[in-house]
Amino acid sequence: MKLQEIVARVGGTIQGDAAQEISGVNGIEFAQAGDITYLTDKKLQTKLETSKASAVIVSAPLELDMAQVIHPNPPLAFAKILAIIRPNLRLEPGISPEAVVLENVTLGKNVTLSPFVYLGKNVRVGDDTVLHPGTVVYDGCQIGNQVTLHANVTLYHDTVIGNRVILHAGVVIGVDGFGYIPDEQGRHVKINQVGRVVIEDDVEVGSNSCIDRAAFGETVVKTGVKIDNLVQVAHNCEIGEHSLLVAQVGVAGSCKLGHHVILAGQVGVADHVTLGDQIILAAQSGVHKSLDKPGMYGGSPAAPAIPWKKSVSVFSKLPELSRKIRALEKRLKAIENQ
Amino acid sequence: MKLQEIVARVGGTIQGDAAQEISGVNGIEFAQAGDITYLTDKKLQTKLETSKASAVIVSAPLELDMAQVIHPNPPLAFAKILAIIRPNLRLEPGISPEAVVLENVTLGKNVTLSPFVYLGKNVRVGDDTVLHPGTVVYDGCQIGNQVTLHANVTLYHDTVIGNRVILHAGVVIGVDGFGYIPDEQGRHVKINQVGRVVIEDDVEVGSNSCIDRAAFGETVVKTGVKIDNLVQVAHNCEIGEHSLLVAQVGVAGSCKLGHHVILAGQVGVADHVTLGDQIILAAQSGVHKSLDKPGMYGGSPAAPAIPWKKSVSVFSKLPELSRKIRALEKRLKAIENQ
Amino acid sequence: MKLQEIVARVGGTIQGDAAQEISGVNGIEFAQAGDITYLTDKKLQTKLETSKASAVIVSAPLELDMAQVIHPNPPLAFAKILAIIRPNLRLEPGISPEAVVLENVTLGKNVTLSPFVYLGKNVRVGDDTVLHPGTVVYDGCQIGNQVTLHANVTLYHDTVIGNRVILHAGVVIGVDGFGYIPDEQGRHVKINQVGRVVIEDDVEVGSNSCIDRAAFGETVVKTGVKIDNLVQVAHNCEIGEHSLLVAQVGVAGSCKLGHHVILAGQVGVADHVTLGDQIILAAQSGVHKSLDKPGMYGGSPAAPAIPWKKSVSVFSKLPELSRKIRALEKRLKAIENQ
Repeated sequence: MKLQEIVARVGGTIQGDAAQEISGVNGIEFAQAGDITYLTDKKLQTKLETSKASAVIVSAPLELDMAQVIHPNPPLAFAKILAIIRPNLRLEPGISPEAVVLENVTLGKNVTLSPFVYLGKNVRVGDDTVLHPGTVVYDGCQIGNQVTLHANVTLYHDTVIGNRVILHAGVVIGVDGFGYIPDEQGRHVKINQVGRVVIEDDVEVGSNSCIDRAAFGETVVKTGVKIDNLVQVAHNCEIGEHSLLVAQVGVAGSCKLGHHVILAGQVGVADHVTLGDQIILAAQSGVHKSLDKPGMYGGSPAAPAIPWKKSVSVFSKLPELSRKIRALEKRLKAIENQ
Repeated sequence: MKLQEIVARVGGTIQGDAAQEISGVNGIEFAQAGDITYLTDKKLQTKLETSKASAVIVSAPLELDMAQVIHPNPPLAFAKILAIIRPNLRLEPGISPEAVVLENVTLGKNVTLSPFVYLGKNVRVGDDTVLHPGTVVYDGCQIGNQVTLHANVTLYHDTVIGNRVILHAGVVIGVDGFGYIPDEQGRHVKINQVGRVVIEDDVEVGSNSCIDRAAFGETVVKTGVKIDNLVQVAHNCEIGEHSLLVAQVGVAGSCKLGHHVILAGQVGVADHVTLGDQIILAAQSGVHKSLDKPGMYGGSPAAPAIPWKKSVSVFSKLPELSRKIRALEKRLKAIENQ
Repeated sequence: MKLQEIVARVGGTIQGDAAQEISGVNGIEFAQAGDITYLTDKKLQTKLETSKASAVIVSAPLELDMAQVIHPNPPLAFAKILAIIRPNLRLEPGISPEAVVLENVTLGKNVTLSPFVYLGKNVRVGDDTVLHPGTVVYDGCQIGNQVTLHANVTLYHDTVIGNRVILHAGVVIGVDGFGYIPDEQGRHVKINQVGRVVIEDDVEVGSNSCIDRAAFGETVVKTGVKIDNLVQVAHNCEIGEHSLLVAQVGVAGSCKLGHHVILAGQVGVADHVTLGDQIILAAQSGVHKSLDKPGMYGGSPAAPAIPWKKSVSVFSKLPELSRKIRALEKRLKAIENQ
């Protein structure tokens, strides 16, 4: 595709050969002739000078031989060009004879049902949706348009999946929440989980992550949320629009996250916690109380980032502080004894 | 079902219209006419007054228009009524022609083998047991009565599953434990894991959790244990009766947990640790040494909850303590210099 | 097999009846007549005296009735004998009629394709490789010789798997890395992940672990690496030879680990961190900065083990230190007031 055709689709202005063919997209280190790349960091400009790339996306023009696309947001332009030139692979539409489809299933146009896909009763699947092999959809699920369910995904009954959702291999949506009441003998009696899960549009969920169905009502993952691998979202949570949950995060029951919340890797959030919009939790933090003010927090229990980092920096000096206190006590004793 | 029929099955006494039909069970906020609900918390009594529920389970009679079921344990009664009115869905019994069953398999009465279920050689499946699509059972496994294996579960060879066990989608039981011996070149030589896993009656295991087979002998999960999603139980562990392992807990090899142990979310237990009966670990704790006395512990390394919480509360004041020590040193120096 | 035949294969010298038949291998507690065992710990010598084992592997001869194999590394000899006498079970070679194989697939000799295995286009499978039921291999994957893929494994497109690799049930290799760029409206635009994963020879990966494909280039798991269950390895990581990643470890994007690194359970490593050879991280540590010097580290942020343990030991005394500071302040005040 010609550079000018690409730029017509993603915006920006061209400096250099606009008619040249761009056949690939790559990081600065990997780029070859025909590739377009982008400058992530001014420090990498010297790397760019030796790069074999044919064009680069920059936020302001540089002294360079190669063609430049000037764009206000080079990483965003890069992501969009990447999606044009290297679109994700898509299985051919069609219903495999090795798929099993129970009664009263509604399929949209151009659906792909791979071998070993199972659709329970009363399932609806939207247009242009792809189900990879081994995906199991229980009764009553509704799946939107342009959805991709990768291999070995499981949707429990009555799960609702919006449009353009991507669920990666091994994801489980709608599994029972963890709810029990002890009886007189200390045996845990199951509270049947009779709610469901609603995944809104443009959500992506990483491999082997689990989202519990609500005890009653709905667990909701709102528009544009991105969830990494091995994440746990418990029953009755509401994850706000465009939030990011990084790998191995765990969110306990009935939590409510605002929009653009970021939970870094291995963060844990206790049950019934509310996190306001644009709250960011550092990796491995533990949140036990609701947080309201946007900004970064860290530690367990989570505190605002600046005082938390100060406490952390003192932690490594604790043996020294302990020695100082002992020394102070001795010196004071000496004075008092006079 | 009439309210009096329900109460006849779960106990309690009725105040109000005992003959009315109860068609649903719901939380106070969600309840509609025809529903029964329960009072979790006295603070919610005002919500109850505006609830559309037809009946409520309470521990002592209240001033209310709606019918009341007086029961010594309202949450327990609620869980039991829920199981009566909204029982878990069950697939029809029957052997799918798309299931694969190898030689010498014994099936009980009313077994459900869904499409894409695989049973290896010498497998035994008890009465009224349901295997959802994509479940894979290796050779020699024994599965009890009224068991539910959800989609894409894997049982490695010789696994033993008791009665009324529920394994959620993606669970793996009997995978090799993590055991190696380095050779002279620093290569890790695998210690073949030749033991097995025994899951006793009434156990439930959440999605994508893993339980390792023993190196020798057995990994045992005892009666009534409930395990949440994404939990790791390593080889040769023994998890005591009615213990609860919340999501993303990891228990290393050869641990022995007593009965009614509770490990909250993301807790880690080091190998060869013994935890006595009724020990509770707060979320994200790390246990490196055996604990004997019942009660709550927290932190890493885990300490009894009260002193641990005190230390945590001082942690946030560390920068202040550090400043105070510097100030003390200055003031003392001034005195010493006199 | 005769004891002398076994010893001929694993090295060592025999003291006692070299011609006797050895039919089993077991831990000291479990060993029966006909079994060989080994001494892990001098403290267990009394247990050995009452063991029913027929032979024992020791590093130096003991006063014992049973036959002894003297070997410089008894645990290693034991692991090797175990692999001889109790080899891992292997499914019969053969292509199940219930497997689905797309066009242009190349299969080596003695391959096992179980029921419900799916091989996409242009897949290559080496000799003596076993695919258990429900394994899904996307287009363009290359799988070496003597590989075992357990049930419900998923390989995304173009994944490369070396020889003698074992992937346990539910493992996902080659899933998209977690990469997005926010647009002007705060929506996360996906960065298509166009790299791949290369797993070198003799790697073993535990159940439900996930390894992300590279954004560009390759995520590499080098020879001899052993990964436990529920581990996350993000895009563009390089895991050095013979490293060990214990259960629930998370390694963020673009990390580079040296050889013989050990990450204990639940460790988290932040993105772009480099860990030198033979670095060991204690369980639940968090690594935010690169570490170079071999040895043990712990805590979050990770510090060398000895000072970290000292700080940890002071942590439990924080309330006491706080009291001491208050007392010092009072006493000093009293002196100053004089």
